Amino acid sequence: MALIVKKFGGSSVADANKLFNVARIVTEDYKKGNDVVVVVSAQGDTTDDLIAKAKEINPDNPSKREMDMLLASGEQISIALLAMAIEKLGCPAVSLLGWQAGFSTDSKHSLARIKNVNSERIRAELDKRNIVVVAGFQGLNKYDDITTLGRGGSDTSAVAIASSMHADLCQIYTDVDGVYTADPRKVVGAKKMNEITYDEMLELATLGAQVLNNRSVEMAKKYAVELEVLSSLENKPGTIVKEAVNMEKMLVKGVACDKDILLVSIIGLKDTPGIAFKVFNQLSRKNVNVDIILQSVGRDGTKDITFTVPKTQQADVEEALSIIKEKVDYEDMVINDKTGKLSIVGAGMETHPGVASKMFEALADVGINIHMIATSEIKISVIIDVEDCQKGMQAVHDKFIG
Amino acid sequence: MALIVKKFGGSSVADANKLFNVARIVTEDYKKGNDVVVVVSAQGDTTDDLIAKAKEINPDNPSKREMDMLLASGEQISIALLAMAIEKLGCPAVSLLGWQAGFSTDSKHSLARIKNVNSERIRAELDKRNIVVVAGFQGLNKYDDITTLGRGGSDTSAVAIASSMHADLCQIYTDVDGVYTADPRKVVGAKKMNEITYDEMLELATLGAQVLNNRSVEMAKKYAVELEVLSSLENKPGTIVKEAVNMEKMLVKGVACDKDILLVSIIGLKDTPGIAFKVFNQLSRKNVNVDIILQSVGRDGTKDITFTVPKTQQADVEEALSIIKEKVDYEDMVINDKTGKLSIVGAGMETHPGVASKMFEALADVGINIHMIATSEIKISVIIDVEDCQKGMQAVHDKFIG
Repeated sequence: MALIVKKFGGSSVADANKLFNVARIVTEDYKKGNDVVVVVSAQGDTTDDLIAKAKEINPDNPSKREMDMLLASGEQISIALLAMAIEKLGCPAVSLLGWQAGFSTDSKHSLARIKNVNSERIRAELDKRNIVVVAGFQGLNKYDDITTLGRGGSDTSAVAIASSMHADLCQIYTDVDGVYTADPRKVVGAKKMNEITYDEMLELATLGAQVLNNRSVEMAKKYAVELEVLSSLENKPGTIVKEAVNMEKMLVKGVACDKDILLVSIIGLKDTPGIAFKVFNQLSRKNVNVDIILQSVGRDGTKDITFTVPKTQQADVEEALSIIKEKVDYEDMVINDKTGKLSIVGAGMETHPGVASKMFEALADVGINIHMIATSEIKISVIIDVEDCQKGMQAVHDKFIG
Repeated sequence: MALIVKKFGGSSVADANKLFNVARIVTEDYKKGNDVVVVVSAQGDTTDDLIAKAKEINPDNPSKREMDMLLASGEQISIALLAMAIEKLGCPAVSLLGWQAGFSTDSKHSLARIKNVNSERIRAELDKRNIVVVAGFQGLNKYDDITTLGRGGSDTSAVAIASSMHADLCQIYTDVDGVYTADPRKVVGAKKMNEITYDEMLELATLGAQVLNNRSVEMAKKYAVELEVLSSLENKPGTIVKEAVNMEKMLVKGVACDKDILLVSIIGLKDTPGIAFKVFNQLSRKNVNVDIILQSVGRDGTKDITFTVPKTQQADVEEALSIIKEKVDYEDMVINDKTGKLSIVGAGMETHPGVASKMFEALADVGINIHMIATSEIKISVIIDVEDCQKGMQAVHDKFIG
């Protein structure tokens, strides 16, 4: 008998048929004698529909507290329906909202971080032999206000429960059957991996592979929660994410591309001490996640700063930039929303010379121009035109893995 | 400066335009310096849509706990959107779910009763000069599970807040501009009343006038909360509901009709002691509200028992009846879903002889057959065929008021 946490995304619970599919997966494990906690997201397009309703009221800037109140209703619907489906299949179930399941978060509405999961209620329901269905993506701050964790937050919710309850396994169900060397819907020859390390997964998640939310992988690594990424449609093993894996032959584990970025350039900044702090402090105040940063020397002793931010945070970025405009002396500011970030990931990459040049060669061969380059111990990222992303991914994958 | 509680139903908040209409009404009173609490229902058809989703999963009998979890999401959406609309008009607003607003209820899922409203949080938000938008219809039981109060429960929520906070006025906004002598959409010549007593309103509400939920009127009477029923579309005074009103000339204050009833007849019950208890105890266990009861002597020393129940509780009624079938000795059981209850209401009616016969005459004149009659101090109800309801209401209204 084990304690298993399972997480299903919005597309896996989109309608009655899919809910019964999830209910079947869940009850199978339950009937074997396991304790089962299921974390679900809002159904299909619910979140987008709710956002559209809010935009009708306030197209620019609806209050984030009220957005969280609004969006949290999405999971409330899916947990109730899934509990009904499980009961219809003859197993006892109880649905719990984020706060009922003990999720305490900080107060950053729309991007809250989990502070603690008090799993007492979940434990009590499991002890009554209930299957516990938990609303992902949401929690409660210290003022008793509903918060949400941001897109992909349901993965984090699942890992947080698994960590808090010392679960034996945390299974993340998706519409692919595991982690691939590249998105198999986009790259010909992409291969499924049996195992991958937290660090490699982290780079892939951060880089837009869209299999697992990066915060969930960070948390899984921190608390040593064994993850499995698997398909909700096919009954076969997925990819295990853990600390150390069997050495595989491939040096480059994956190729990923993130098109949802903005490339911001501030040109001709007056070179005074603390200028970079002034810029990035404003972005940090708006909770904007700045990714690649590149600073170069401009003409006449000025500096150029270029960085990437998630496109989803465009409104916050623009607010921060309008404050920056008043606080610093600069010549020009350009926001480019037509670029993408293409990356390769693999542990041990840094000790193998020539990986970077091989990547640049692959891109040059298909005529792709590189705007920016950034490297870490286990990844290399380049910024290229968004329309080159597809072609670039395939070329790089062919070079290293294909 | 006054404390005003305002309640808007689902049709008043059905879309962005209507939400802004409500926001305008609310902010007008706020800008005069008043403290304003707004209670809202789910938008338009949301509740029906959610019920349809549940029926897809379990057509017969979805768990009531999970139904409450599901349905409570409806108000969560409308409070968030209304708070956004109020903020868009430039006034500060904060939305609160039932439990955040302090609603404790008993544990009868889908028909919970409010035990207490701890209005501390509402008070704190008003003290910060926020307009407080509260989700009607919902609360929390002692197990920290979401409960709902049943259809029309938002009226009760509003009155409960008004009572708990000693509000100066509780305004119930509807799509009519006050309480009429009959439903003006159905009866020609229906007249608006300026004032009406709690007792008269109570009979009218119970009888299906569909202006105010009866539990809300009971509670308003008990705690002496002054109610105003008024239109959300026209800016003019409505009908005040209070303890004593100026004597008006009309003896019959209103004519109402309830088509959502089932007429249940149990024929040829063996006449043993406690037989009526056995029948009604089962219905009470299922929380079925039995209205008119008529017991008559049948053939061979048997009894016939006939009673009416709300059509909305059909599933519970049928469950209760199936148990009754096993516990008592009877000849036949008939459920008639093709009848309606037509009633006239007016304080002092019992001291004026001839009111009943005048009502029966009006019905006879248009050829309507009466199945059952029931009277109280201030009302007379008859059960007639449902297709006679419209004609009957008009005939009786013409006779007494028209």
